[in-house]
Amino acid sequence: MKEIVSIQFGKDQGPLYLQLYNHIKRLIVDKTFEIGDKLPPIRKVASQLQVNTVTVVSAYKLLEQNDYVYAKKGSGTYVADIKEVEEYMESQRELESSIHQNAENPKDVAGIALMTGGHIHIEKDSINFASATPTPAFFPVEDFKQVLMQVLDRDGGKAFGYDESNGYGALRAAIVSWLKTDYQIESHAQNIQIISGAQQGIDIIAKAFVNPGDYVLVENPTYTGAVAVFKSRGAKVVGVPIQRDGIDMEKLEKYIRIYRPKLIYTMPHYQNPTTFCYSDDKKVDLLKLVKDKKIYIIEDDFMSDLNFEKKYRTKTLKSMDQYHKVLYIKSFSKVLMPGIRLGFLAAPLMLFKQIMQAKHTSDIASSGLIQRAFHLYLKKGFWNKHLMHMKEVYYSRYVEIMKLLLEVEKMGGDVCKANGGLNIWVKLPEGVSGTALYQRCLEKKVLIVPGKIFYVGENKAQDNYIRLSYAATDIQQIKVGINKLCNCIQMLQNQDESDVYYSPLI
Amino acid sequence: MKEIVSIQFGKDQGPLYLQLYNHIKRLIVDKTFEIGDKLPPIRKVASQLQVNTVTVVSAYKLLEQNDYVYAKKGSGTYVADIKEVEEYMESQRELESSIHQNAENPKDVAGIALMTGGHIHIEKDSINFASATPTPAFFPVEDFKQVLMQVLDRDGGKAFGYDESNGYGALRAAIVSWLKTDYQIESHAQNIQIISGAQQGIDIIAKAFVNPGDYVLVENPTYTGAVAVFKSRGAKVVGVPIQRDGIDMEKLEKYIRIYRPKLIYTMPHYQNPTTFCYSDDKKVDLLKLVKDKKIYIIEDDFMSDLNFEKKYRTKTLKSMDQYHKVLYIKSFSKVLMPGIRLGFLAAPLMLFKQIMQAKHTSDIASSGLIQRAFHLYLKKGFWNKHLMHMKEVYYSRYVEIMKLLLEVEKMGGDVCKANGGLNIWVKLPEGVSGTALYQRCLEKKVLIVPGKIFYVGENKAQDNYIRLSYAATDIQQIKVGINKLCNCIQMLQNQDESDVYYSPLI
Repeated sequence: MKEIVSIQFGKDQGPLYLQLYNHIKRLIVDKTFEIGDKLPPIRKVASQLQVNTVTVVSAYKLLEQNDYVYAKKGSGTYVADIKEVEEYMESQRELESSIHQNAENPKDVAGIALMTGGHIHIEKDSINFASATPTPAFFPVEDFKQVLMQVLDRDGGKAFGYDESNGYGALRAAIVSWLKTDYQIESHAQNIQIISGAQQGIDIIAKAFVNPGDYVLVENPTYTGAVAVFKSRGAKVVGVPIQRDGIDMEKLEKYIRIYRPKLIYTMPHYQNPTTFCYSDDKKVDLLKLVKDKKIYIIEDDFMSDLNFEKKYRTKTLKSMDQYHKVLYIKSFSKVLMPGIRLGFLAAPLMLFKQIMQAKHTSDIASSGLIQRAFHLYLKKGFWNKHLMHMKEVYYSRYVEIMKLLLEVEKMGGDVCKANGGLNIWVKLPEGVSGTALYQRCLEKKVLIVPGKIFYVGENKAQDNYIRLSYAATDIQQIKVGINKLCNCIQMLQNQDESDVYYSPLI
Repeated sequence: MKEIVSIQFGKDQGPLYLQLYNHIKRLIVDKTFEIGDKLPPIRKVASQLQVNTVTVVSAYKLLEQNDYVYAKKGSGTYVADIKEVEEYMESQRELESSIHQNAENPKDVAGIALMTGGHIHIEKDSINFASATPTPAFFPVEDFKQVLMQVLDRDGGKAFGYDESNGYGALRAAIVSWLKTDYQIESHAQNIQIISGAQQGIDIIAKAFVNPGDYVLVENPTYTGAVAVFKSRGAKVVGVPIQRDGIDMEKLEKYIRIYRPKLIYTMPHYQNPTTFCYSDDKKVDLLKLVKDKKIYIIEDDFMSDLNFEKKYRTKTLKSMDQYHKVLYIKSFSKVLMPGIRLGFLAAPLMLFKQIMQAKHTSDIASSGLIQRAFHLYLKKGFWNKHLMHMKEVYYSRYVEIMKLLLEVEKMGGDVCKANGGLNIWVKLPEGVSGTALYQRCLEKKVLIVPGKIFYVGENKAQDNYIRLSYAATDIQQIKVGINKLCNCIQMLQNQDESDVYYSPLI
């Protein structure tokens, strides 16, 4: 049996057990001790090194907890297969990187990973139709750098202090006038809460208004990140079908009667994942429906700006909200860049105290530096300049991908023509499963999201849809990717037929 | 009765009711309609302006909801006292600004405001012993600007993308080696979660592990911002008395038996508000106590770095945590600057998945730009340079304030000699109430925090303590401020005696 020798305990190098742990760890990593080797018995080590047995026990325990060794009952402690540990770590890293690539929908890829048994490899040369996050190449780095510098020169230390609890005052004022001119939304600086992205907006609203056992209605299918928030507050989440012109009003009325929900979570523009938009009539109906009830509506407006029809100005639900029922969340991620971690919440004044408190207990305040920089960014007209640019980029991709997807329609599929946003919702030809297609595409290094994971309620989930995002794919990738996608669909169709052919007729 | 005339409805200026609302609002602000004036009846306005009555109703309703008018049942709609509304707004703004001045303890000032009936004015020339936030003048703006620039030049758009879900990899690796050398804490980049400040760390842990009805033990008195988080998750929060050498172990054992808590929230170094430090023995005892139980300990280490005894290296609880029981939260606010909104959480690997998910549903990720900048800041040795500087600054203030507080001890008070941190916990002379002293000091434009608000459980609250912070006061302000404080104590003592003198003897 190998022995643990030549350890020099240092006085100032921490507790003995920790020094011993590190020493043995090194012996394992150096392969002095190899996989399957038995560590010497505790008493022996203690007497050899003249330390207490507790020290050795602690060191061994720590080695075990960090997966360097494993204990066999009644036999002893053995060196584990570190490679296995390293592989585990590696797979964790991969899972992480795949999650962050689609991080605005953290649950999307996590959900896929779950569905497919936890193994998901995004290879570097993959074509990624799963990510709804714009490519870094389009981030307005130079403009943002300019405003950052200006803020630091102008404000010095103040840029790193605390701003007002609901956000930097000048930014809130700028947002108020921007909301008025660009969105016809009437607001006050007093009911704008700056948030660290849309996800935090949903989280704060849930924290402020949702108690365990409360019901929350959501569109079905919907953004899984919102569902996760409501569930984490102990809410019961019920899905209401979404139709081409908005939420199913009949079902909504019924569910309101049955469940008496506190909140309704909506994305009226280019809904995620369906890309459906509410008609103005439906917006009016929705507001009327809740006006005398103790129900609030969350309008998650993450891309009403990305509207390709130039003449048509999208009316937000909030702009029509004469009853003070809408909590309006705006994220800048999809237009600008996700890493800015900034957005805002416009809420009825009477709800504001609770929102401010929820923000406080969450993280006190959003970065003052970023707020000040974004204020200048807005003021200098950089936002509108960048928005115009991104609309052009996305529009050209949209045109390309829609042209190519005609092929899927020829095969019997149905493609929703959103004319805005950055997602496409595809109904697959009959008999083709979104999950199976996802797997097939993955093998061809094309990443898509099966529609199934967006559904609330197991029995409601439909597996004949997929969501394609064109935020992270250029025209060339779109050409190659959709071509591969079509091949995969065809293969599944043929296989289906052959399955039918070969399967015993009952 | 005045009339609403001369409104020009514009086709592209939004819904009619909104235009009407804005028109009447202007008439009120212009004083065409004055306080108490009755608005003309709805039918009349509708017929005069040739609009639907619903339009007028909606406009009136919106005016009411925004406090421009009020409706008297069966009588009509009257112009409200806007000045009153404006005063309300003004008082809200003041409350806000006072909260943000002490924003790491958002509930502190809010609590004071509550206790004193909601009116709190911090005048510009106040001496602020309530804020535990460093003065902007000491923020290392130039160094931070340098690393920000370097990151933008080096990483371009990548600085604004999403990083790994638990934080920028290079920063986590740097934190691991920093923890090892400076804190004797063994960790892996895999169990470091980057957070947007310590408050978010507490919030994430609560989200991951606390369910409604669970018990959480806290030191008593404690940081009110943590209590607010646990309560917002529906937890039952029980206070365990804190003693000069750490938490009361006897009571802790008993409460663990009775309540079977999920978490224990601790601040082992310069505890807020008492400034007490755990002895090493007590740290060992605490860890032993929970080692075989399903209990985790949060170590909120917001200022173990600010240790004025040069020879003595503070041992964190985490560095002694051989049982993997400690969730270690580190904030950079007190040393560096609050606006950086950055910290980290080092947690046992087996808890990590839940933590990562909780972070995700909270705000997906912390700002990548700030993470990358802080990584360089650490790597270039700026952190240690700045820490040394801040220790000097705080130490000189500490020496000054302790010297002056001898006066309070002469009057019968007791001042805790922390020799570190940036708070001082003062037991007042018998008969002097912290709340009364707070009021007296406020009149003299000296802001302190009455100890009472830090207590959990009404009946446990002690009103003969105050907390003084010297983070936001320079030596000159300390001299003037403590002098005024002593005068106020004396006045209260004298008043007490005279009260006794004049009050009828029973």
